Amino acid sequence: MNPGESLRRLRESKPLVHQITNYVVMNETANATLALGALPVMAHAREEVEEMAAIASALVLNIGTLSPHWVDAMVAAGRVANERGIPVVLDPVGVGATRYRTETAHRILEEVRIAVLRGNAGEVATLVGVEAEVRGVESIEAGDEGARLAADAGRALGLVAAVTGPVDHVSDGERSVAVENGDPMLATITGTGCISSALTGCFLAVNAGRPLEAAAEALVALGVAGEDAAREAQGPGSFHVRLYDALAALDPDTLDTKARTR
Amino acid sequence: MNPGESLRRLRESKPLVHQITNYVVMNETANATLALGALPVMAHAREEVEEMAAIASALVLNIGTLSPHWVDAMVAAGRVANERGIPVVLDPVGVGATRYRTETAHRILEEVRIAVLRGNAGEVATLVGVEAEVRGVESIEAGDEGARLAADAGRALGLVAAVTGPVDHVSDGERSVAVENGDPMLATITGTGCISSALTGCFLAVNAGRPLEAAAEALVALGVAGEDAAREAQGPGSFHVRLYDALAALDPDTLDTKARTR
Amino acid sequence: MNPGESLRRLRESKPLVHQITNYVVMNETANATLALGALPVMAHAREEVEEMAAIASALVLNIGTLSPHWVDAMVAAGRVANERGIPVVLDPVGVGATRYRTETAHRILEEVRIAVLRGNAGEVATLVGVEAEVRGVESIEAGDEGARLAADAGRALGLVAAVTGPVDHVSDGERSVAVENGDPMLATITGTGCISSALTGCFLAVNAGRPLEAAAEALVALGVAGEDAAREAQGPGSFHVRLYDALAALDPDTLDTKARTR
Repeated sequence: MNPGESLRRLRESKPLVHQITNYVVMNETANATLALGALPVMAHAREEVEEMAAIASALVLNIGTLSPHWVDAMVAAGRVANERGIPVVLDPVGVGATRYRTETAHRILEEVRIAVLRGNAGEVATLVGVEAEVRGVESIEAGDEGARLAADAGRALGLVAAVTGPVDHVSDGERSVAVENGDPMLATITGTGCISSALTGCFLAVNAGRPLEAAAEALVALGVAGEDAAREAQGPGSFHVRLYDALAALDPDTLDTKARTR
Repeated sequence: MNPGESLRRLRESKPLVHQITNYVVMNETANATLALGALPVMAHAREEVEEMAAIASALVLNIGTLSPHWVDAMVAAGRVANERGIPVVLDPVGVGATRYRTETAHRILEEVRIAVLRGNAGEVATLVGVEAEVRGVESIEAGDEGARLAADAGRALGLVAAVTGPVDHVSDGERSVAVENGDPMLATITGTGCISSALTGCFLAVNAGRPLEAAAEALVALGVAGEDAAREAQGPGSFHVRLYDALAALDPDTLDTKARTR
Repeated sequence: MNPGESLRRLRESKPLVHQITNYVVMNETANATLALGALPVMAHAREEVEEMAAIASALVLNIGTLSPHWVDAMVAAGRVANERGIPVVLDPVGVGATRYRTETAHRILEEVRIAVLRGNAGEVATLVGVEAEVRGVESIEAGDEGARLAADAGRALGLVAAVTGPVDHVSDGERSVAVENGDPMLATITGTGCISSALTGCFLAVNAGRPLEAAAEALVALGVAGEDAAREAQGPGSFHVRLYDALAALDPDTLDTKARTR
């Protein structure tokens, strides 16, 4: 894993990352993508998603505020991405909270080959059929079982599962990485989970063949930026602002040394 | 009225507040909800709103950027909330500016039992049939008549009316409270009205049986946070950021002493 | 050109600017509009856009996250605005990236009389049939050809073209203005292009008969605010916040002297 080297390549190539995401965080994930050094594009109309996905280097699907037209567009975009070898991230926001979310996430997993599934423990547990408490979309159920859950999900679903929480666990079912970077302040604002999925798309865009590494590198980058932002924050508002400053200030030369993985 | 005690209970129970709101402020009301200490969930699809409303402790309906599917979802969610005794807040953004907004607000008031109606003077006046100037959605027509307007609306509509402005007036038609907390900076950014409705939902979630108190406590909380945020703000951008810091920093032990109500 | 005088009139009359814009930047353009001193209103439903446009002093159409219902509403609102002599701004976000965007922009240009077309070089080039590289929606292809492109577009499309980039070029095909205000930080956050279109709407609202001047004045105002904001910014997050502070702090008395136009 070389987050610094990946970040350097990302900033040189400025990959286009197509995001079909929720209304709540669109501005936030677009700005986080730009701050990291990639180019975001938000487009959700069935009429254009296939064309847009085809010119992107990664596709991020996020069901945070889903509705039927949007879900159809996600599936259509995902299929084109699959045909072209463009990696796809799925963020199953709030899955388990309603049947519609659960069915939609399962439908996407069936119809689209997902490179990385990024969710919190409750969401990922729901998708592999483990009992989990899900309250709305902010539920964060951390725990020592994160590592096993990520490995189970990676194996059962045939993808890389990135289970985020106080410690993040990334696994393809065989290999696993734990990322200990981050700060509790990340949980005080909405959208940091969605941002981690967007950044996963960014790192995948320059590392399509190595989804485990890309997912872990993205979580290192966000975690380090979160640590930097928390240092001078006076609350969730100023933390939020500094998070973009910190993402833009990430230094490829020192990122590897700041990574705390095992 | 005990805003401090209510805030303490809110932070302990972290109630889920379901918000069907407008595109402009979704991130803002979600972050304000989190900063205060509750859990927001945004979901608008007809396919899932009933289930989501049923697991929430309060429901907030906001017509700021309405369209037919969304309105149907608001009514459906509202009915489920009514059946389960979950309190509902209505924010009739821009009512009076177009027939569609006015008809929609009336439809919701007819089909859903609203606990608290939160709007500015022009909006509330429109709903009780008083002549009012409404310009877009930012119109704030304060005035000495706010107290009477809130009482009239409370009586005529059979709910608690929270008429916000330089001084906020909350009334169920019999009892009334005026809240003098706040700062003119709150009017310099979009969405503070919507945030006040979201926070009303938060306080209702821990005080479902006392909507007058909940509405007034929410306005005290936002008003005090606005005062704190304004102190070091250099303009609307920095005020906006500090508002979240200030909401998160609200201290249950001192909130009652900072309340300026009569 | 008198940006200071126009700003003074704008702050006195507080014109209502109706914006049918994209999900990513709604909060941002609304807050920029407020910070400048005008009143934003966001409304997109076919059921109400004609009424809302009719009471506005300018209409801004932005296709950043378009879909069929929204496009129909844009055309309907545009026609009403045309009938009433209300100036219309078009921001053809990402045109050229997909056929749907290109067709939609052409449709709007055919069915609605546009006062000012505000886009980056790639977008405007696409609309006048010049070869251009468009990558997603963030592509900024500056260059010495901006001046010619603006003049060509102004002439070919019969409107004022505002081609923004490191130097902005505004032209009606005969008269041209170059605006050199601004800061590279403006390109580090999403939505500054959309904000420039919104502010163009604000200046048009008090200068409907002089679209060339209005467009140039808006770019001066945003450029000067960008310069002010960049001075103390530590990255894109803090720049973003300070941009609103700087817009609100723009001084009509000194704005003319800060304008760098030719």
